Amino acid sequence: MKISSLGEFGLIEQIRRTAARDAKRVRVGIGDDAAALMLSPASALLATTDMLLEGVHFDLATTDLFSLGWKSAAVNLSDIAAMGGTPRFCLTALGIPPPLSVEDIRVFYRGVNACLKKFGAVLVGGDTCRSRTGLVISVSMLGEMEKKRVITRSGARPGDLIFVTGTLGDSAAGLEVLQRKAGGRGQGTEVRKLIEKHLRPVPLIVEGRKIAASGIASAMIDVSDGLSSDLGHICEESGVGAEIVAANIPLSTSVMSLKTLERPALAYALSGGEDYELLFTVPPDKLRKFRSLRLGASEIGVITRGRSMSIVGGDGRKALLPASGYDHFRAGRNVRGTGR
Amino acid sequence: MKISSLGEFGLIEQIRRTAARDAKRVRVGIGDDAAALMLSPASALLATTDMLLEGVHFDLATTDLFSLGWKSAAVNLSDIAAMGGTPRFCLTALGIPPPLSVEDIRVFYRGVNACLKKFGAVLVGGDTCRSRTGLVISVSMLGEMEKKRVITRSGARPGDLIFVTGTLGDSAAGLEVLQRKAGGRGQGTEVRKLIEKHLRPVPLIVEGRKIAASGIASAMIDVSDGLSSDLGHICEESGVGAEIVAANIPLSTSVMSLKTLERPALAYALSGGEDYELLFTVPPDKLRKFRSLRLGASEIGVITRGRSMSIVGGDGRKALLPASGYDHFRAGRNVRGTGR
Repeated sequence: MKISSLGEFGLIEQIRRTAARDAKRVRVGIGDDAAALMLSPASALLATTDMLLEGVHFDLATTDLFSLGWKSAAVNLSDIAAMGGTPRFCLTALGIPPPLSVEDIRVFYRGVNACLKKFGAVLVGGDTCRSRTGLVISVSMLGEMEKKRVITRSGARPGDLIFVTGTLGDSAAGLEVLQRKAGGRGQGTEVRKLIEKHLRPVPLIVEGRKIAASGIASAMIDVSDGLSSDLGHICEESGVGAEIVAANIPLSTSVMSLKTLERPALAYALSGGEDYELLFTVPPDKLRKFRSLRLGASEIGVITRGRSMSIVGGDGRKALLPASGYDHFRAGRNVRGTGR
Repeated sequence: MKISSLGEFGLIEQIRRTAARDAKRVRVGIGDDAAALMLSPASALLATTDMLLEGVHFDLATTDLFSLGWKSAAVNLSDIAAMGGTPRFCLTALGIPPPLSVEDIRVFYRGVNACLKKFGAVLVGGDTCRSRTGLVISVSMLGEMEKKRVITRSGARPGDLIFVTGTLGDSAAGLEVLQRKAGGRGQGTEVRKLIEKHLRPVPLIVEGRKIAASGIASAMIDVSDGLSSDLGHICEESGVGAEIVAANIPLSTSVMSLKTLERPALAYALSGGEDYELLFTVPPDKLRKFRSLRLGASEIGVITRGRSMSIVGGDGRKALLPASGYDHFRAGRNVRGTGR
């Protein structure tokens, strides 16, 4: 069905119908001037927003609309995870270009709601308008957490050990494959895993909560711009440096086994981004408690004095590590066609 | 200065410097994964978002960037006002096309912050990315209010009187003048008032608070799509109808005195939109209390049984009133080039 035959308010009603209910926390949801929401009186409110633009962040030739909806929610949920919080409420603003149909928008919201539901959040409001250029997506996520447990980027101290969950570089490698595939190649199981990691990232809400509740982390961030950039954010905000060991950076067997990548696997980990893993620092006196959590995170280095970051290579030699991740505006540093 | 020479994170640092501080309520502000914010334990959280797209909602040929920043904040603040709430926190997501400079973005944020400051809110976070098409703005506003005082669109009952603050149609008339002016006309004081109303609307936070605190309103909405549309929203959500009197709809002397408008002044009031006045309903037993507030609102009609809206003309004849305000998607109903 054409959106023009349904109209703006008909479309909002369709979106309202797709959204899950949370009568306990949502006093007023979709369809009023603002949502009216209930938080625990003991909580701090967490709030974050991310924009995704067609032709910059995504290409409708390489993603389906369900995955795009999922990812739009996931990247915001990941920011709540990186604070250690519990996600609660989501608002979406959509600029919709004429080619998209009512069914397209429904599929997009099925993706949004599937991701929200998996992590206990609900859609409570938003905005819809027409776009004359491409599809424009802006998502805001609200969460809550114990006031004293908030984990920022600024608490890392020299001597703290650096950990990262999961594996790095998969999403960037998956994107590279997807962009080539537009030129038509088949894919095995390992390749499909990389693509899945790019199109439907899983925000680490459970892991973030465990880390926050146990009080073991001095700083935390999610890996969205690439390890070197995101570690750089922790160093800058904390006023410290870092030394990481190349051999300890976790790479998946999927990335390692892919022979056709344009760059070495480590490059995808350092500057690829969009992994949405959690990167965090643990003071030495919290290590025993941290290990008891069995998070399955890799120790990749240590926080140092000074402000510079370095990486120890396979040959034992130390080199300066520049923040080489994604920057939306710097000329010549954006090696690929999408950003985050 | 070019944004590319500053980079994404340099730009975020610039934006962080423009923002006012609120150490009591903002535990973590701009520059982390999410903002961590403090609300009163007795409050409901209000949350709203609005998107503004170049070429759809605004034209850089007819607005300066300070006004655009102001308006981006104001339209969201107006949604908080329409619930009766107190605005607290703002997040902005910006998609920035290459022609804009660092100074342009600074001026935009001066506008955002000037509006926020006037109404007691602060910028706490956001997202910046490059846009390949036009300037893309998405603003989310968070506010708070006493849990029991939230005013929705759904509480109007037959017999309630309908009031609206200020005057209607000025913004739409101002836009029409602006679009013609791009063809080069001079302007008097009255015309400048109309343009000002369009470019820098003033959200009625103080009036919304008074209405909420006194408990006199059964339903409320801000006039963003046009009186007929927004009254339609109240009727639909409340399951009621309405009868309004054309002669009682408040028109400004500026609109009345402008001889060159393409349509009758009343048409701008009924379907123009972007007035950001407050439209609300008052039960008969609350009228005395309402009058004691001295809000300067005009009584324009009464809520009726049924679902239809009608308007009584100057000749005393009653006609059906269709919701003729702005709809982003309906074909043939968008008489002008901008929406909201």
